[in-house]
Order: sequence, then C-alpha cells, then structure tokens
Amino acid sequence: MSLKFSQLGARQQESNIARLMTIALQRPDLLSLAAGFTDNDTLPLAELTEIAGELGEEGDRKVLQYGSNQGSPRLREIMTSRLEKQDESDGYETDLSLISNGSQQALYLAVQTLCDPGDIVLVEEPTYFVLLEMLRGLGVEAVSLPMADDGDVDSAALEEMLTGFSADGIIDRVKAVYIVSYFSNPSGHSVSRQCKRSLLDLLSRFEGRIALFEDAAYRDLYYESPFDAESCLAFGDAKLSKVPVFYSTTLTKPFATGLKVGYAYCTHRDWLSRMLAVKGQQDFGTANYNQALLVRALEKGVFDEHLGDLRKSYHAKMLVLENELRARLENTRWKWQQPEGGLYLWLTAPEEIETGFSSEFHDEAIKAGVMYVPGELCVAQSALKNKVRLSFGVLHLSGLKIAAERFCKAISTFSASEKSEKVR
Amino acid sequence: MSLKFSQLGARQQESNIARLMTIALQRPDLLSLAAGFTDNDTLPLAELTEIAGELGEEGDRKVLQYGSNQGSPRLREIMTSRLEKQDESDGYETDLSLISNGSQQALYLAVQTLCDPGDIVLVEEPTYFVLLEMLRGLGVEAVSLPMADDGDVDSAALEEMLTGFSADGIIDRVKAVYIVSYFSNPSGHSVSRQCKRSLLDLLSRFEGRIALFEDAAYRDLYYESPFDAESCLAFGDAKLSKVPVFYSTTLTKPFATGLKVGYAYCTHRDWLSRMLAVKGQQDFGTANYNQALLVRALEKGVFDEHLGDLRKSYHAKMLVLENELRARLENTRWKWQQPEGGLYLWLTAPEEIETGFSSEFHDEAIKAGVMYVPGELCVAQSALKNKVRLSFGVLHLSGLKIAAERFCKAISTFSASEKSEKVR
Repeated sequence: MSLKFSQLGARQQESNIARLMTIALQRPDLLSLAAGFTDNDTLPLAELTEIAGELGEEGDRKVLQYGSNQGSPRLREIMTSRLEKQDESDGYETDLSLISNGSQQALYLAVQTLCDPGDIVLVEEPTYFVLLEMLRGLGVEAVSLPMADDGDVDSAALEEMLTGFSADGIIDRVKAVYIVSYFSNPSGHSVSRQCKRSLLDLLSRFEGRIALFEDAAYRDLYYESPFDAESCLAFGDAKLSKVPVFYSTTLTKPFATGLKVGYAYCTHRDWLSRMLAVKGQQDFGTANYNQALLVRALEKGVFDEHLGDLRKSYHAKMLVLENELRARLENTRWKWQQPEGGLYLWLTAPEEIETGFSSEFHDEAIKAGVMYVPGELCVAQSALKNKVRLSFGVLHLSGLKIAAERFCKAISTFSASEKSEKVR
Repeated sequence: MSLKFSQLGARQQESNIARLMTIALQRPDLLSLAAGFTDNDTLPLAELTEIAGELGEEGDRKVLQYGSNQGSPRLREIMTSRLEKQDESDGYETDLSLISNGSQQALYLAVQTLCDPGDIVLVEEPTYFVLLEMLRGLGVEAVSLPMADDGDVDSAALEEMLTGFSADGIIDRVKAVYIVSYFSNPSGHSVSRQCKRSLLDLLSRFEGRIALFEDAAYRDLYYESPFDAESCLAFGDAKLSKVPVFYSTTLTKPFATGLKVGYAYCTHRDWLSRMLAVKGQQDFGTANYNQALLVRALEKGVFDEHLGDLRKSYHAKMLVLENELRARLENTRWKWQQPEGGLYLWLTAPEEIETGFSSEFHDEAIKAGVMYVPGELCVAQSALKNKVRLSFGVLHLSGLKIAAERFCKAISTFSASEKSEKVR
C-alpha cells in the first residue's frame, strides 16, 4: 500500500518511551528505574472510590455529561486560587486557565498553536525528554540554552546567544523558552527567583515575540518545604505584558495518574483562545467525570491530605535509593545531588562512560536486571553522553534497594571489564 | 504584544459550537434543539457508581495508574470482538485498534498523520460539522462528494469527479473519503451495503493512495434493529489491502458522555503506528480509570443493558418531536424523513427560506426561544441554505414538545412576515 503520509516525517520516529516499554515487555524480570510512573501503593483508590460514591448518592447526573471545552469552571477556579496562594500573589484570572488531558496535552496545544515547522524552542540542558519528542513531532527545533554551573540558565550567555541569532537573521524563528522550574524531570533542579527575573528581563526586550513556558509539573511534590521561588506569573504586570507566559501543571502526578487531568494558565488571551480552538477540534474537552472527582477531592481536602502522604513516601524512597547508591559508589567517580522534591536522581558518570541505549554500559545494566533513562535522551543537542536518570517513582522500598544493587553491580562489572580491556 | 502564531490561521476561527454555546449562555431561556448532548436523565450514574465501588472494593490500584498509549488491551479486545459480532465477520486484530479521548481525537489523529495543509478530504453532503472544523483547523480542504437522491454517495458521479481530479493534476492531494455510515449526524442517513461496496471498488483502483474513513459513532444507537450493512472492514481482505480503512466509534454517546472514551480500528499498520506516535506526544494515553470503568461495564452487561434503555428513550423522544412537527407543519412545505436511529432530525425548508446564523429565520427562532443547527454548517461547499438540524438528545419529553411548538411558531411567524413583506 502506498498511502502518502503527512510530511512531518519526524512524527513517525519510534518514541523513546515506546523503546523503554518494549525493553520492559521483553524482559519482565527487569526492575525499572526508568519509568516515571507513580507506585501503585500510593494511588488513592479508597479515597477516590469514596468520592465516586458521594457523587453517586447525590445523584447529580451532570457529572457524566459532556463538560465544556475549556474545562470545569469550578476546577479552574480552585486551581487558579491555589496558584495565587502558592505564588503569594493575586489578580490571576480563572478565564485565562484551561483543563487538559494531563499537562502534556496543554504543552502540545501551546506548541502547536505557536510554532510552525522550522521554528525554534530553547530548552534547558537537560530537559524533559517527552517535550523534545513533542517538538520533533511538530517539526520544531529544540536548541539548548546555555546553562550555569548551578543548573540555572546562564542569562548573560543567553543574551549573547540571542544577539547572535539576531545577527544571523534567525531570531524570528525563536518562539519560546521552555523551563521545568520545580524539581525538574530529569535533573531535580529548581529554577531560582533570580534566574526567572533575569529571563523575564531579557525576554521582555523582544516585545512579546518570545514566550516563556514554565512547566511546573513537580511543584507540589517537594519533600519538606516548597521551593522558595514564585512562578513567573507573579513577576508583575509590566513584564508580563511583554513576555507571554504559559504555565502548566498537573493533577495527575500529585494525585491519581489514571485520571489524566492537567491545568494550565496563559497570560496571553489570544494565544489561549487559539489553544482552545485546537482543543475543540482534538477532543472538545477533557472527561467531565474526572474533573468532577477532582473538584470534590480538592474541596474535601482529600487531595492535600494525599499529597502530604505522597511527599513523605517519595522522600523516603529517594533516601533509600540515594543511601544505597552512596554506600556502594563512594569510591567511584559517579556524582549526583540529593534532590529536594520530585521523582528523579540525575547521575553523572565518569566522563569516559557513555550511557546511551547503544552503549556497553546500558547493555551491562540490562544484563544486571535494571533499566534507566540514558541522559542523552534529555538533551536537545547530543552533548551529555555520561548522564543517567534514575526514577524512584514506581518501585517499592525493597525493589528500590535491589534495583540500586543491580545498578551498582553494572557499574562495577563495567569498570572491571574496562580495566581488563586496558590490561589486555 | 506581538506573538506570531502558527501559520494555520484557520485554526483560530471561532468554532460554530462555541458560537452556539455563546448564544445559549446569553439566553438561558432558550430551549436547545441544537446541542448534540445526551440528556442527563439517561446518564448511568447509579450503574457507574456501583462499578466504581466494585473496583474500589477489589482494591487493584492499577486502575489509577497510567495506562498504555494505545489503550487498555482488555478494552480493545472487547471492542474488537464486539465489532466482529456486529459485522458478522472475523479475523479482526486487537493490535490494529486504539483507544482515544472520544472518537473525535481518533479522527483528529487520523487526519493529522495523513494530511498536509492543502490536501483534500471528500465528505458527504451533509456531513458532521465538527469534522469540517477539524479539517479547516489542520488546513485541509473539505470537498463535497456527489450524492444520490437516496442519501448515498453517487459512485458513478464520484468516478467522474476523481477522473477530473486526475486530469487536473490534483488527485495526489485527495487523501481520503469520509462517511458517517450509521444514523448520520446530521441527516440520520445510513450508508447502504451497495454504496460501501461501490466506494471500496472505486477507491481500490487508486492502489491504497486514498483512504476510507468510516465514522460509526451512532451505530449502536438504532431504535429497533441495527442497520443492515456491515462496516467497510468486513468487505474482504482483497479490497482492504488496496483501501486503507479507518473505522471510528465511541463509548461515550452510547453510555456515559462524561467519560470521553473512543475506539478506532485501522487496517493500515503503518498509518496506525503514526497515529500512536502522535498520540504519545499529545497525551500518552487516555485516562486509564475511565477505561477500567468501561471494561467492567461491558463485562458485566451493564453497558448493553443501558444501551437498550437508551435506544427506547431516544426512540420515544424522536417520536415526540417528530409527531409535534408533523401535526404543526403538515400544511407547509417543510419536509423530513423519520430516522431509524441516532439523535437528529434533518429538515428541509421551502427553498426560499435560508436558515443560516445570519438569516431572518434564525433570528425568528431565537425570538421564539429555540435553538437549532443551521444546515449550512454541515456542508463543505455552501450549497444547502435551507436545511435545519434538530437534535432531540438533550431535552426531556416535555421540553421537546415546547421546543417543537416554538420552532413551528417561528416558522409561521416567519411565513406571515414574508407574506406581508410581499403584499407591501
């Protein structure tokens, strides 16, 4: 058959997630430090069942009706006011928010309405690898931002970069800067207030032509206290009128993944209305029942109670994995920082160790019975060859210990074989 | 602010649904014969609550975990085997199916992966108006198929049309034929077996370059007996190897709209894998909890029990609306056919009466307190000026009577004013 497909050939690439899943299916004995899933034990099935029961008893069948394209007004109101509280700011407008199928759809809509094939989005190094796949799929070029040693964007270098783009005549293709601002996937890094201010200052010089994407998916998943920087939405009207900000977050990761509900806020009314037009074409609104369940969970306090437990659970899991690694790798040149939230450890291997899917080290890990995400998936340009993302989301405490053991075994076997290689 | 958006400007058009909703919000006193919603009373809240309770009791928290991108294997298996039964055929492969956010997302993915801006999709006249908006949003041109008097596609005329396209050198832009094959939205028409066979015969000459979209959203919503034609999937391997068929349906309309779950089947493996790649970028899978609820509803027989009730309910509602209209319009030149399934009556006004949003007749209807969908929304080229789609989905029996009364009042007031216009 000779069906001729849409020209955006990149869309057809095998997704890296699909690749990881294929490995997992072929080798069910593997322990996964790769999947960004939450673990089943912390999923609030009892709580959600109770809420479903309440909705059933009250008997308002409208919860099973179509909802609106933009999303439940009540849910958007609650989420917008939560955001104001988190930011210690006010004046946020429910009208500027939308509910999506997980935060991923919101990001997709934002990129799809903003970018044509050939446009450029600047991303941190490292960045969320699914965003990179999304950009490729839409024909958009991802270019790495210059990074400072502390993990923030290097604003001075970015200024130079943008000046260079202007000189080269490609600045008009630069549509947005994308940052994962709290407990980042994959690095665990949070973007400082100072960095946000510098970014907004710099972008404001482009008079609204470059947007800022703030992906705050993990903001609620701090271990002990929230990260001490408000979102870019809180940096004052003056700047925001010159920098369209698209802020996205999710009710999925901090509560029940199986409900797939995201929330986004866009300071630029016209851009938002274009996203809503496309959402109207893609699905005309996220499942209304799920939104009704979440409204109730938020109103009853069940959401926050659960979130409190979840923070403790992830903190404990991070510590178990991290302690195991520390104990076993203290005499090696592997390095990492303990995160203060999120689901990931971001490891730096000795420079000569490549960690990609086709690397010997990756083979060794699979042989040892453990999966991880190669760092090179998380970069726009292929620089970071020696990084590893480990997720402690999906495994239980005991599984994490064994997975850590296996991962460290892979390291020592690999080093030993490297040495014997050299001797020979 | 001077943000420069994606060039697909058409995406930004105000959607006609949004337009209808704006009218509804401004005038809450209006009765809607426009909305394609189901009515609240038939939504299976008690049944669904019971199922949620069962899932909760069993305690398998995986139902709240992320699902797979392609959709629950069990749900796809059940739906694929239902399809085989409906078609009295076999050999359908679960692997070739996918679960989407309502059938709308499946259609979107199919068009998005197949078409570039400027490509052509051929559609019935009339056709599903949301599909027309979707095509516009993706920059794809909708062109009306030649129709026979019985409401089927006129195959002989289509053959000529395609020959003309070949001569004009634009045949390569024709990517698909889209039909709504059972109790169509808006016309209530079902596509005959003979018409499907002719279409497949004709398209098979293009050696797989033109796909067939079969939208079967209303197939289950017959009143007394299923429409007597199998889907295009059942027309034998020989033809299908030359005509990629994309079949879509929904679990939303026949059960609980608020769950937003659709099912699609694609005979072309490569095309399907491209859709899955894009779905992976848009949301990486439809809400897993909703799929778990539906699996249980299907397994327990609750789905079919409910469907039985729904058929009776829609049948009764259609009869009430239709009887009212018949009684009040028998001495006019308004015409329609009684449908045998679905949610819509498709009315033909006397030729001189235009029914569009900006028509005097539409003003008259709004004045009389009733909303309808102008027929011109449902055509690719603006030919059908004097058609009206009435939906009996959302209103109760008593509301339907009043709405019919109002609609007929609009007709008589309008005719009276037309006459006095002429006299003057």
